[in-house]
Amino acid sequence: MEKSITIEERFGMRIRELRNLQHMSQEELAFRCQLSKNYVSDVERGRRNVSLKAIEKFAHGLNVNLIELFRY
Amino acid sequence: MEKSITIEERFGMRIRELRNLQHMSQEELAFRCQLSKNYVSDVERGRRNVSLKAIEKFAHGLNVNLIELFRY
Repeated sequence: MEKSITIEERFGMRIRELRNLQHMSQEELAFRCQLSKNYVSDVERGRRNVSLKAIEKFAHGLNVNLIELFRY
Repeated sequence: MEKSITIEERFGMRIRELRNLQHMSQEELAFRCQLSKNYVSDVERGRRNVSLKAIEKFAHGLNVNLIELFRY
């Protein structure tokens, strides 16, 4: 049986995708978002139940509209 | 000086808008989302830093795609 992907995993994959598209390191993204590198790494691996405030930081750090983070 | 609206407030307004469009009470939405009525009320007033898992519950309860919650 296939394990369905969680919302945290989908979100993390999207963050990684957008970061890679911009040739940005996790460290750079963390700096831009004012989040720790460990936190960004956890989010990308789908291990964090990210909140609105942090979602907003990711949008800012990736320089995209919030809605882009949910296009997947 | 104008106080800019927070992401929690924008999100709450959107939830209320979508709920009203469906002529649904807060109680009914809470039931559909498997969240408490107080929590739904707080979210609509922009008082909660809602997480991905709860965002997913709202999308489910409102029967919309996740991305619709961020069209504002």
